[in-house]
Amino acid sequence: MINVDTVMQQSAAAFEQYKKVPAAGRAVFLETIADELETLRESLVVIAGRETNLPPARLNGELTRTTNQLKLFARLIREGSWVEAVIDSANPASTPPRPDIRKMLMPVGPVVVFGASNFPFAFSTAGGDTASVLAAGATAVIKGHPAHAETSLQVFGAIEAAIRKTNMPAHTVQHVAQPGNTIGKELVMHPLTTGVGFTGSFQGGRALLGYANQRENPIPVFAEMSSVNPVVFLPDTLEKNAASLAQTFGGSVTLGMGQFCTNPGLLLGIRSAALDHFAQLLGEAIAQCAPQKMLHAGIHEAYEKGRSQLLSQQGVAVVNQGAAAPAELEAHPVLARVDAKDFLANHLLQEEVFGPSSLLIVCGDKEELKTVLKSLKGQLTTTVAGTEADIAAYMDVVELQTTLAGRVILNAPPTGVEVCAAMVHGGPYPATTDARFTSVGTSAIKRWVRPVCFQGFADNMLPDALKQDNPLGIWRLVDNEYRK
Amino acid sequence: MINVDTVMQQSAAAFEQYKKVPAAGRAVFLETIADELETLRESLVVIAGRETNLPPARLNGELTRTTNQLKLFARLIREGSWVEAVIDSANPASTPPRPDIRKMLMPVGPVVVFGASNFPFAFSTAGGDTASVLAAGATAVIKGHPAHAETSLQVFGAIEAAIRKTNMPAHTVQHVAQPGNTIGKELVMHPLTTGVGFTGSFQGGRALLGYANQRENPIPVFAEMSSVNPVVFLPDTLEKNAASLAQTFGGSVTLGMGQFCTNPGLLLGIRSAALDHFAQLLGEAIAQCAPQKMLHAGIHEAYEKGRSQLLSQQGVAVVNQGAAAPAELEAHPVLARVDAKDFLANHLLQEEVFGPSSLLIVCGDKEELKTVLKSLKGQLTTTVAGTEADIAAYMDVVELQTTLAGRVILNAPPTGVEVCAAMVHGGPYPATTDARFTSVGTSAIKRWVRPVCFQGFADNMLPDALKQDNPLGIWRLVDNEYRK
Repeated sequence: MINVDTVMQQSAAAFEQYKKVPAAGRAVFLETIADELETLRESLVVIAGRETNLPPARLNGELTRTTNQLKLFARLIREGSWVEAVIDSANPASTPPRPDIRKMLMPVGPVVVFGASNFPFAFSTAGGDTASVLAAGATAVIKGHPAHAETSLQVFGAIEAAIRKTNMPAHTVQHVAQPGNTIGKELVMHPLTTGVGFTGSFQGGRALLGYANQRENPIPVFAEMSSVNPVVFLPDTLEKNAASLAQTFGGSVTLGMGQFCTNPGLLLGIRSAALDHFAQLLGEAIAQCAPQKMLHAGIHEAYEKGRSQLLSQQGVAVVNQGAAAPAELEAHPVLARVDAKDFLANHLLQEEVFGPSSLLIVCGDKEELKTVLKSLKGQLTTTVAGTEADIAAYMDVVELQTTLAGRVILNAPPTGVEVCAAMVHGGPYPATTDARFTSVGTSAIKRWVRPVCFQGFADNMLPDALKQDNPLGIWRLVDNEYRK
Repeated sequence: MINVDTVMQQSAAAFEQYKKVPAAGRAVFLETIADELETLRESLVVIAGRETNLPPARLNGELTRTTNQLKLFARLIREGSWVEAVIDSANPASTPPRPDIRKMLMPVGPVVVFGASNFPFAFSTAGGDTASVLAAGATAVIKGHPAHAETSLQVFGAIEAAIRKTNMPAHTVQHVAQPGNTIGKELVMHPLTTGVGFTGSFQGGRALLGYANQRENPIPVFAEMSSVNPVVFLPDTLEKNAASLAQTFGGSVTLGMGQFCTNPGLLLGIRSAALDHFAQLLGEAIAQCAPQKMLHAGIHEAYEKGRSQLLSQQGVAVVNQGAAAPAELEAHPVLARVDAKDFLANHLLQEEVFGPSSLLIVCGDKEELKTVLKSLKGQLTTTVAGTEADIAAYMDVVELQTTLAGRVILNAPPTGVEVCAAMVHGGPYPATTDARFTSVGTSAIKRWVRPVCFQGFADNMLPDALKQDNPLGIWRLVDNEYRK
């Protein structure tokens, strides 16, 4: 039985030490975690494959993504400008005299990170949340996901080895694993917890947000939860590129058995022969997908239930689907279609069906297409497929899409989330609980910090990032000018 | 009777237009509001004086601060770099090919702004919240504060004149005034509301946060609520500078009858003859303060009640106080003292008493001083008064203070909040509901935006801030380098 209080006390004690480790030291720590994971690559892929049913190529790719993320955050903090140092110099001549005021971002404290079932490496124990927490100078308590418990423990072993090799404080990272949901609630509600990172279901994320709001002092919860990633197919491109669009987006719907939060679950177009033709080609592409086992029995069961519910709704018709009765745990891919009127009348059709299914909404005209877009909840991504002529004629549709999601994509599938400075993997509720932040890319570090302002401090009392002669050589906003 | 739904529909419709107004146009709008306020200065000061009991000098100063804030935000958005444009260029040669990804901050939609009773200009109808909302490109619905209803209407008249003169969309700013708290709840809970700004009591802010969390889609609430702004007086400076410290901090405790959220309500020191001497001098300074009327009967009543409650607690003794039985609505200033043990045993002593009262906590030694600091809730500010020798010996105390507040101040009173880029007027709960943001200074604009990411967009489809040749000439992070 895990004593949550002990765990959080240890995390808070480690934080007192870890926050003083210079950025260069934290960078080496992150790189050492990456190195340790690389050493374990072969066995990690085997264990994760057994636990998640994901194929070796995917797992190897995901592990590379994971070590690259760690190295990316190491580079970010070694460069150092991410702390957003701002300096306003004193002006004794002004009335009243203006004091010297400086601010920068500083880490908040212990953060609870929940592993995600669909990314055993990249969004779990040493994934993006953990990497960004440690880069920020905060400490991490990881709730391992039970669907890949052994993988999680092995990855944590790599982190522990890195802690030892780089002399980081004990308990800078801790790992807890216990069946059931009580432990998660206890972790989120503990007074020493200062933030929460989560990727998973709407129900899960919503529950964590609820716990955080019940605290005497509410804390930020960054839950990435639920998105159907609507794709708009415009008329001219449907006329000209139906076959390649069907290949590309069919591949996106079925990639990894559709077990991605950026899986395109809603497709929108305006009624035409070209749309019907595209639907037929897309249906074939989806039906031909080679079946694979889903992550675990729970996800498989939820998919089959969601799929059945979708197909049983008023006006929903199957366009095409994979061969019936797939083997155990294998998903049964499907493309369905529905008229916009039926879609608009039935809020159940907005629900995410996590797996290789997608619903094509056939709209009567541009106005109805816009009505459907306006009816949608917040999303992680939305895509528009169109030629130059399409875009010129539908710029108002694209503008509407911009209000809907954290990322708007032109002529490419939403699956595939680049880990870079400009990425926004986030979006309006219920895609996430906080549209102002991202869980992928370097800006993810901003979730675990707050600004602290120093007024009238002597230079030797200031953190290095704020010292007058800029010993870290970072970009700073000095008297309203960016300078290095 | 105000129809909240109509108001929010109008705000949302205005937002569709206003968000397209270029930054230069929004800047002129803000400057025109400032000009209109300047035109009304004389009558505004008279009306506000009648409604708030604040003296003309203070109101004139506050109005200047208000117009300066509007001009500061105008300069900020005219310069334009605040949108945090980030560009990661495409790399077709990488595996898989990396798409072009760009992001920037974009306004969220209609924001509800609550006027504050203690700042009829600077934190009310055309105050910092409204200025930052309009600068961001969001629209504002202002709930006027009933304690200065006429001032609020007159200020709104200036905004309306500016809307007309600069051809901004109708309903870009709306003003609602209705007695009672129902209207506030309705505004916060309306589905079209995307954010809330509030400065006021803990009870008020906590209620608004609760409403926002009850929504189907939670929205950010930025409530600046409650702070006692602890000041630590270190031994060496008490020996050397007792008289000047007493003048400075006595003035800070009684400034504006203590009706500032940065009023120093807790003072900390280590038991010594020098501390006793300082307490005596400070008590005299506070007792000598010329009495003035408080803002309104409700605040006066709450102050007298809070003051009585404070003085009736176990171990609390009056050091000195103003002449008894002041005139109607006048506050009765007081300095009290208590031993750290009694303070630690009684959580009531942490409560803010909004007015010219302060409590000196006498600690046995440095360790007890640190224990008291650790027991405190989140604060807007915390100050340390000390000589160089003090600081060298008490750096661990200063470090502890850094974890406590949004702003840490050396050798200056916390009252007086500079409006600049480096200011953090915010802090851990319950000082505010969101320690990651500030309500004063240019960064306050960040409360009304979210990042939006554009992937694979053609240059002519991108917002100007993200176009390849940087037509706005702003600072951007391009392929991980800051460039202009």
